[in-house]
Formats: sequence, structure tokens, C-alpha cells
Amino acid sequence: MSAYTTMGAEALDALIAQLEQEADAVRARGLKLDMARGKPSVEQTDLARPMLDMLTSTSSLVDEGVPADNYGFPDGLPSARRLAAELLGVDAANVVVSGSSSLNLMHDTVVNAYTHGIGGNVPWCVQGEVKFLCPCPGYDRHFAVTERYGITNVPIEMRADGPNMDEVERLVEGDPTVKGIWCVPKYANPTGITYSDEVVRRFAALKPAAPDFRIFWDNAYVVHDLGEQADELLNIFDALEQAGATDLVYEFASTAKVTFPSSGMAFVTASPSDIAELRAAFAIERVSPEKISQLAHVRFLRDVDGIRAHMAKHAKILRPRFNLVQRKLEEGLGDLGIATWTKPRGGYFVSFDGPEGSAKAIVALMADLGVTLTGAGATWPYGKDPKDTNIRIAPTFPSLADLDAALDVFVLVVKLVSARLARAQA
Amino acid sequence: MSAYTTMGAEALDALIAQLEQEADAVRARGLKLDMARGKPSVEQTDLARPMLDMLTSTSSLVDEGVPADNYGFPDGLPSARRLAAELLGVDAANVVVSGSSSLNLMHDTVVNAYTHGIGGNVPWCVQGEVKFLCPCPGYDRHFAVTERYGITNVPIEMRADGPNMDEVERLVEGDPTVKGIWCVPKYANPTGITYSDEVVRRFAALKPAAPDFRIFWDNAYVVHDLGEQADELLNIFDALEQAGATDLVYEFASTAKVTFPSSGMAFVTASPSDIAELRAAFAIERVSPEKISQLAHVRFLRDVDGIRAHMAKHAKILRPRFNLVQRKLEEGLGDLGIATWTKPRGGYFVSFDGPEGSAKAIVALMADLGVTLTGAGATWPYGKDPKDTNIRIAPTFPSLADLDAALDVFVLVVKLVSARLARAQA
Repeated sequence: MSAYTTMGAEALDALIAQLEQEADAVRARGLKLDMARGKPSVEQTDLARPMLDMLTSTSSLVDEGVPADNYGFPDGLPSARRLAAELLGVDAANVVVSGSSSLNLMHDTVVNAYTHGIGGNVPWCVQGEVKFLCPCPGYDRHFAVTERYGITNVPIEMRADGPNMDEVERLVEGDPTVKGIWCVPKYANPTGITYSDEVVRRFAALKPAAPDFRIFWDNAYVVHDLGEQADELLNIFDALEQAGATDLVYEFASTAKVTFPSSGMAFVTASPSDIAELRAAFAIERVSPEKISQLAHVRFLRDVDGIRAHMAKHAKILRPRFNLVQRKLEEGLGDLGIATWTKPRGGYFVSFDGPEGSAKAIVALMADLGVTLTGAGATWPYGKDPKDTNIRIAPTFPSLADLDAALDVFVLVVKLVSARLARAQA
Repeated sequence: MSAYTTMGAEALDALIAQLEQEADAVRARGLKLDMARGKPSVEQTDLARPMLDMLTSTSSLVDEGVPADNYGFPDGLPSARRLAAELLGVDAANVVVSGSSSLNLMHDTVVNAYTHGIGGNVPWCVQGEVKFLCPCPGYDRHFAVTERYGITNVPIEMRADGPNMDEVERLVEGDPTVKGIWCVPKYANPTGITYSDEVVRRFAALKPAAPDFRIFWDNAYVVHDLGEQADELLNIFDALEQAGATDLVYEFASTAKVTFPSSGMAFVTASPSDIAELRAAFAIERVSPEKISQLAHVRFLRDVDGIRAHMAKHAKILRPRFNLVQRKLEEGLGDLGIATWTKPRGGYFVSFDGPEGSAKAIVALMADLGVTLTGAGATWPYGKDPKDTNIRIAPTFPSLADLDAALDVFVLVVKLVSARLARAQA
């Protein structure tokens, strides 16, 4: 029971009238704020500026004998592959560093399965219905990739320790049309939770009904801690080895939110057999990768310690923003029992749940008052949040002052929409 | 009739014995030379080194109001789009600059047609047989893209002024399973010829039987002249406008062989409707492009005049290499009537034709003597050169001294293989 649902109709009417007056006052201010975008702030991208000094006209452009300034070496520069491997705790021999977008690598991996099949199996495009499991709330751009290829996106309940593994096991092991699952295992988008060791082990122990089932392990926030108290994610490839399993996981990551978004290094790793298959596909699809950018990256970041030191600077900028979200929501909504939200220790988002049937109305009223939020439903396949509760809060890009103002409006709007809902149900 | 086919058996035997002795002497030298790769030489890539000084930690990273250092602007930086548009003589509104590989853009364009169809038509993947026309000799990586998607690659005769347009018209206008044609209209790979104005006009005037037929116009060598006497290619989009046609051409290009191979800017242009369709596909497949690289490019190259000035430096390096090819072939083979070769005014290759049934033997013997050539047949779909005559000579990468040595071996090997063929037929 929330504070509003226990109020009488008259008290609710008075509350609504008062909140509407406050909303009118906000509207009159003509705000133009944005809490929608999961992108680094200007202060954060500025941290990568020294990378631009790494290569000059007189620099050596050779990396361990490999020229960065010409064609060739489709798997990427040796140093770049090693850095990626170190970051993910895998063998560099199984890493391909290519392009600046891990989402593009995921897309191309889905297309390879769709048009050519995985491991000698029939291409997905001629298998009839093909399903992907989508832990929800999740990342809309993942869902958009599989949706584009006519794959049925099946929502899976997301819990505090990861996806509901009973459901995942039941579907993956029982239904041969289930071919994949989208995972952001660390600081998940948008809940910010990290899969527990048990969840990772259960993933590694999956015995899929389909031989061409794969886990799409998007380790987007592998080093994106907000503070010293960081989550630890069990290495899925270690877990696979312990489980005696192979050919089950594609893991992706990038430096998009380490250096410059859209101009980072993207990479993929998989079992020797799976990565050989991707390599063969990439040999037709891609020429050699952007090795000049890779060289600048490895000279700037150097090694995993270098990356961690750099990410500590990001954290210093992000921490006050995430703290502000927690403080404002707690102060404004903490006592009311109308909403819940996550308290992540890393990543880019806070996941917020209002009363049932509130999310669309909240996002619409926010827009009306001059604050853009991620569209309600975006975190669910086909944009359909069944209970219409979830909103993704992206606090990284706005300035602290803008975020402060936007959160005040958000608290007001959540109250108003919740009060109206309670009144309608009273 | 060649000099060899008119020789008697005895004289041929003596000649073969002498050439074999020479070949033995070459083999004993243990050469390790490479004339296979269509890639710029070190001197050429060094020309782009000043681009690495364009961006430093203190540079403005904003291009006409657009931040280059964060997500967004999927069509590319305004300056980059304008530069690409200027280079191709098209409207920047119809240009997408994305990625570093135009081949990857071509691939993704084929995949879009294959999985989703063009202009509302049924996807190619469910149309049964789909054909692409492949002017031959041509570019193996083009053919590999369509081959990967099960598209039938149909060889089309290449002439001095472009593909045999009678054949192209007959097939495109008569056969609705013909969905595309691969064209390198300027300094074609590997013949180096440029399509005549009449050929371009006939392309623009095509009335395809298939509504989802498109010309894949890979203008890879748009500014890659070797000297002052440059070929002029009619602008296909101007020709389309004159013909009152639209939705017929995808045009691709990149700065791969202007700045750094694999680290350049790639771009695509098409009709407003076609580019809107690609943009929608790319919105799922690709995040935003490598705008840091784009910014460095536009600050370095500035405009088309800047590109032309830069390409004149490339030409100065390449001219002696291409001249050497002509001189060596003329001196060694000019009088014998056993071979023909092209004399391009730009691009990256010389196309060589020996006697029927000679190409595979020449490439194999060259390898045996320590000189790598592009595989015989590579310039034809499925690697099948029906007469086994064509060899692609790539003179850009080796040093002049290495090229000189490699050409001496080549002349010797062409003579020996031709003499053996003549002897077998005598």
C-alpha cells in the first residue's frame, strides 16, 4: 500500500491540485533538460583528450612489428588484442578487435547466424520461428537487432542477481527455437545489477536444446565502476571451462565509454571454433580494422591498470551525479511507497519503477514540462512494458545543476501521476 | 600469331632450355618479392602523417556545432559529408559517412537487400535465384560479397570503354532475377580503364526488369590519377537526372588510398529514397560513426582541392612504378605478340593477359621463383577465368628496386610458360 492509495478522495484531490499548480509553475519556466541519453558528459570525454597527443607525424606507427597505417591484420593490432584479452580475462588468440562499435559486432554476429547459421547448422532465416530471450528491463538496441531479423524477443524477468535462471533454463533447455539471450552481465542496462556467481555458473552449465544457441554476453560496463565498492563479475569463460562447456558464448565489449564514444575500439571473443567462424564471415564483410585508432588507444591506455586508473577519473565525475539521483529520489519519494529504483555501483543508468500504468504518463508529462526521458517501454521488447512501470534514468550527460533541476521535476511528476492514478482507482 | 607459335619445335626446345636455365638461376637467388597487394607503399602512407598532428589534446573537437567526441550524428560530421559530396559531385543531404571501409558499406547494402529487400520489394533471400553482373576481369572482394549470399555472379565482358553494354542491357532489361552489377567506373580494378560517357549514359538509361535492381558504383579511384593526363568520369547522378531516372545507383568511395588504408573515411550516396532506406538499416546495424577520425580527415584534407593536391603527391610516387611496368613489359614482351596489358592513367593495377591457358602456370612458376602475384582467376567470379589468361599486376607496394627485379622474373616466366604452351601445341 502506498501513501496515496490509503488517502481519501478529498485529500487526493487537494494534493493533485497542489501538484498541478507546481507543474504549471515548472512549465512556465520553459525548461529544456535531457535525462534520456546514456552518454558520457563533456568532462568525461575530455579525459580522453591526451590520447590525441599519442600519435603525431613523427611517431612510429608500428605495433610489435605490425604496421598500423596500412591494410592487413584483420584481427587487429597485437597490443590491442592483448589489451582486450586482458580486460576480459581471455586468450588473445580468440579475440578480434574491429570497428568502433560493439553493437555493430553483435549485429554482424546475429546476421552471420541468420544468413549462414552457426557451427554448420541451418541458417536461422530458414528455420521458421527463432526466439531470443531478453532479460527485462534491458537494452533497447539489443532488442532492435533481433527484431530487425524477425526473431521473436521473449521477455525474461530480471532480478537483483541477474535473469530468472529457472525461466532461462526451462526455455533454453526445453525449446530448440530459442537461439540466444541478450545479457549485460555487469552493471546491466538499465538496472545496474551484476549477475551473481551462481547465475554466471548456471549460464555456463546450460545444456541448450538448440545446438546453435549462443549467449550474447555484452560486457559493456566491464570497468565502469562508480566507486571503490565495485561489483565483481565471474569470468564466463572460466565458468565454461569449469563446466566443461564450449561454443556457448560470444562476449563483446568496447572502449566506447572509456575513451571517445563512437571512436573507441570494439572487440569480440568466443571459443576457438566460434571465433574462427566469425573471422571467416568478417573476412568477407570487413576489410582490416582501424589500426591507427587502435594504436592511439594502446599507447594511451597501455594495460588494464592504465584503463582502471583512467576509469577512476570517470568515476569521480559520475559519482556525484548518481549520488544526486539517489538523494533526490529518496528525499522526494522515499516515504511514499509509490516507487522503487535501483542503486547501482557502476554502469550508466538507474532503473526506476513507478505504480502500474504510470511510466508512459510520467514520460509524457516530463516532456510537457521540458525534460526529455528515455521513452517509456524502451527497456522492453517491442516497446511494450506489460505493467507500464519502468523508466530508465540516464544521469551521466547533464551537468549536475541540470540534473538537479530535472530530478526535482521528475519527483513532482511521479507524485502527480501517482496521485492521479490513485484517485482514479479510489 | 605470336612469335612462338610460328617457331619450329627445335627452335622452341632450344628457347625453352635457355629460359629454364635462366629460371634456375633466378630460383637459386631465393627472391622474396610481392606484386600481389593493391596497397599503398610506405612512402605513400607517410604522406598522411601530418594528419596525425591535426588533433591534439587542446584542439576544438566540434565541427560546425557537432561534437566529434561523443555519440550521435549517424550520417557523419557535416564537414565530412560535404567533403564526400563535393568529391562525388552529389548533394551532401544524400551522403552517409560511416566506418572506414567502403567494402563494408557495400556488404551492408547487399545484406539489407538480401534480408529486407529494396524499396518494399521481397527480400532477395526469398526470391529464389538472384544474379549479379560482374564485369571481368574485376575485383575479387566484390564478387566474394555476392557469392557469400548465394547470389549468382555472372561474368560480363569488360572492354576498353567499360562493360559490354549490349550484354548489360540485354540481361538487366530482360531478366528480372538480375538485381545488381558491380562497377568500378574509374580506373577499374584491375584493367585501369574508365567508363566512357556513353557507357555511363547507357547505365543511367537502364530500364531494369527488376524494380529492385541497383548499380553498385564503387568509385574507389575517383581521385587516383597517375599524372596530369587524367581520365574524366561522367557523374552518374548527373546522367541519371538527364535520363529522368532515380533509385538506380548506390555510389561508394573512401579515403582508404588517400590517407591511411583501413583508417580512412568511407561513404555512400544514393537517391533520397534509397539513402533513407540505408539510413534506417544502419540505425539498427551501426551506432554513430568514427567522428574523431572524420574530424582529423577534414582538418587535414580540407576540400576537394586539398585532396587533389594530396593525390598529386601520391601520383609522383606511383608514376615511376607504373612507368617501369610499361617499360619492362614493352622491352621484354613487346615484340613477341604473346601478351597484352593495359596502360592505365590511374588506379592501382595493370591488367595482363597472356596466352590462353597460361595464367595459372605463370602465377605458380612466379611463386616457385620467389615472387607472389595475385592468384590467377581472382579477377573472375568463383576464381574461374574461362581462358586462364588474366593476371593482375599490383605495382604500388614494392620498392622500385624490388618491382624492377620482380618484373624481370615476370617477363622471363611469361616467356617460358608461353613457349611451353606453344611447344605443346606445335
